[in-house]
Amino acid sequence: MALSTTRYRVFPALRPGDPVTVVAPASGFDRASFEAGVEVIARRYEVHYDPGVLTRHRYLAGSDARRLGELWRALADTDTRAVFCARGGYGMMRLLAGLEDVPVAAKPVVGFSDITALHQVLQQQGLVSIHGPVLTQLARLDVHTHARLFELLESEAPAADVTGTETYVEGTAEGPLLGGNLAVLTRLLGTPFLAPLKGAVLLLEDIGERPYQLDRMWIHLELAGVFRQVRGIVLGEFAHCEEKNAEYSSAEVLRELAAATGLPCAAGFPIGHGTHNQPVPLGVRVRLDAGSRRLSFLEGAAG
Amino acid sequence: MALSTTRYRVFPALRPGDPVTVVAPASGFDRASFEAGVEVIARRYEVHYDPGVLTRHRYLAGSDARRLGELWRALADTDTRAVFCARGGYGMMRLLAGLEDVPVAAKPVVGFSDITALHQVLQQQGLVSIHGPVLTQLARLDVHTHARLFELLESEAPAADVTGTETYVEGTAEGPLLGGNLAVLTRLLGTPFLAPLKGAVLLLEDIGERPYQLDRMWIHLELAGVFRQVRGIVLGEFAHCEEKNAEYSSAEVLRELAAATGLPCAAGFPIGHGTHNQPVPLGVRVRLDAGSRRLSFLEGAAG
Repeated sequence: MALSTTRYRVFPALRPGDPVTVVAPASGFDRASFEAGVEVIARRYEVHYDPGVLTRHRYLAGSDARRLGELWRALADTDTRAVFCARGGYGMMRLLAGLEDVPVAAKPVVGFSDITALHQVLQQQGLVSIHGPVLTQLARLDVHTHARLFELLESEAPAADVTGTETYVEGTAEGPLLGGNLAVLTRLLGTPFLAPLKGAVLLLEDIGERPYQLDRMWIHLELAGVFRQVRGIVLGEFAHCEEKNAEYSSAEVLRELAAATGLPCAAGFPIGHGTHNQPVPLGVRVRLDAGSRRLSFLEGAAG
Repeated sequence: MALSTTRYRVFPALRPGDPVTVVAPASGFDRASFEAGVEVIARRYEVHYDPGVLTRHRYLAGSDARRLGELWRALADTDTRAVFCARGGYGMMRLLAGLEDVPVAAKPVVGFSDITALHQVLQQQGLVSIHGPVLTQLARLDVHTHARLFELLESEAPAADVTGTETYVEGTAEGPLLGGNLAVLTRLLGTPFLAPLKGAVLLLEDIGERPYQLDRMWIHLELAGVFRQVRGIVLGEFAHCEEKNAEYSSAEVLRELAAATGLPCAAGFPIGHGTHNQPVPLGVRVRLDAGSRRLSFLEGAAG
C-alpha cells in the first residue's frame, strides 16, 4: 500500500470522568506547574500518575529506566483512556529503542516539542495522536484552548480550522498531518524511529533556534529527501528565533527556504511554542490552502 | 571491498612556494582576520583567492552560487596544490548537492567545524584531507601549530602523536580517522552526503552546545547505528558547552554516553574549537590507545 494513502486509526472518544494518565518521558519540571496542569485536566477527567513523575536527574525527569517504565505502562494500560505528557525539553529520544514493541492500547497521547519523538512511535503504529500543550503549560493557556483540546479528545467531528498569518507558497495540499518540532524531527533522520512522511502535510515549529540553525535543520530535511516526499508545509510558531542585531529575520529565511521547495506553504499558525499552542491531531487527513492560510481537518481524531 | 579496509588516497606533498587557494564556502568573516590568516600562509606558499571571498549575505559568505562556483573551481583546479577554508560557521551543507560530481584534483583541503561537511565530499571520493584550523583563526594560533600544519602538508612521514587528558573507556582501536564537528556530522545522518563510518576511529568535537544538546546529538548517532560501525572514539574540545548553574558538566554527560557504547574512548584532545586546534589528517589510519589517551598516526597524509 502506498504510504500516501495510509489511514491512521482514530482513538476511542473520551468521555468526561474517564481515567487518564500523566507521564514525564523527557525533562523535569517544577511541582507548581505540574499541579496547576493536573488541576486543569482533573476538571474533566480522573487523573492518574506515578509519584515518580516528579523525579529529576540532570535535565531529565528521572533515569531512562524510570521514564521508560512509566511510559510503557501508560501506553499499554487498557484502562486509561489518554496519556498526557507533563513536559517536553529533552529525553524522549533516549527511550525510543526501548519502545519498538510497545503494545499501545488504543488511546491518544497529548504533547509537543520533545514529545514529537513519541508521536513517531504512535504514527509508526498507524495511530492518530494529539500535537498539543504539555500538562505543565496548560494552566497558562486560555479556556478556549482547553475547550479545543477536550473537544478533540471527545468528538468524532473534525476539529475546527486553524489559520496562519502568511502565505509563503500558494497552493493546496491534502494528506495526513505529520511532524511537529523541527529540531526533534530532524534528530530522527537516518534512524528507524521516524514515521514515514510520504504524502504528508508536514507541520514544523520550534523555539530558541537562530536563523542559521533553522536553515541548517531545513537543509537537513532537504538533503534527506523529505521535501520530495511531503505535499505541503504548515509552519507553526518559531518563537525566540531571531538573531540579535541582525538585518534578517527567521521568517525571511524560512520563506526563502519554503519557496525553494515549491510546496504549498503557509506560516504563522498558532501551533507550538507560542502563547496559544492550539491542539491539532496528527495522522488525521487535512487540507492546507496556503493562499488563504487555512488548515482544515477532513476527519475526526476520535471515533 | 569491506569499508573497514578502505584506503584513503594521500595527496601529493606540498613544497614551499606552491600555489594554494583560499575559499569561503560557509559563513562570512571580517577582512582583518582574513588578511592576518593569508599572511601566515603566504610565508610558506603562494596564496590565491577570488576577491568575492569577502562577500557577505546574511550569515553566509555570499550566495550559494558564488560559494559553490568558487569551491568547485578550487577543487578541480589542477594547478593549485591545497585548498584552505577561510571560516566555518554555517553554509557548507547548502552546497553538498551541487558537489556530487566535482572532479577533485588530488590535493588536501584544510578546515574544521562547518567544513566537516566538505571533508565528507573528499572522503566519499576516497581522499585524505586535513581537519585543522580555518584561515581566519591561523594568526591567533602559535607557531608550533603552524609548523605542524605545514609538516602535515609537506611530509610523507606520519604526523606526531596527539594526546588527550581523560580516558572514558579503556581499550585500543585502529582504523581511518573520520568525523569532526558533532553538530555538522549529525546534520548529515539520513542523507547521501555522509562518508561511510564503518571501521573508523571517530573524531568528535564541538562548541557552544549545552549538555542536553550534546546528549541529543550523541543519541542521534546511536539511533542511526554509528556506534555499531566505528571502532573507537576520539573526543576533541567541547568549548563553551557548560550549562549555567548546573550540577553536572558536559564532560560528565559525554563520559556516561561514551561508556554506554563500550567503545575505546579518550577525551580532551587539543583538536577543534579550543585554543590549540592541532591539525590532524582525516582518512589516515590511526591507533587510539584510550588508556594512555594517545592518538598515533600509522601513515603519512602526503605521498
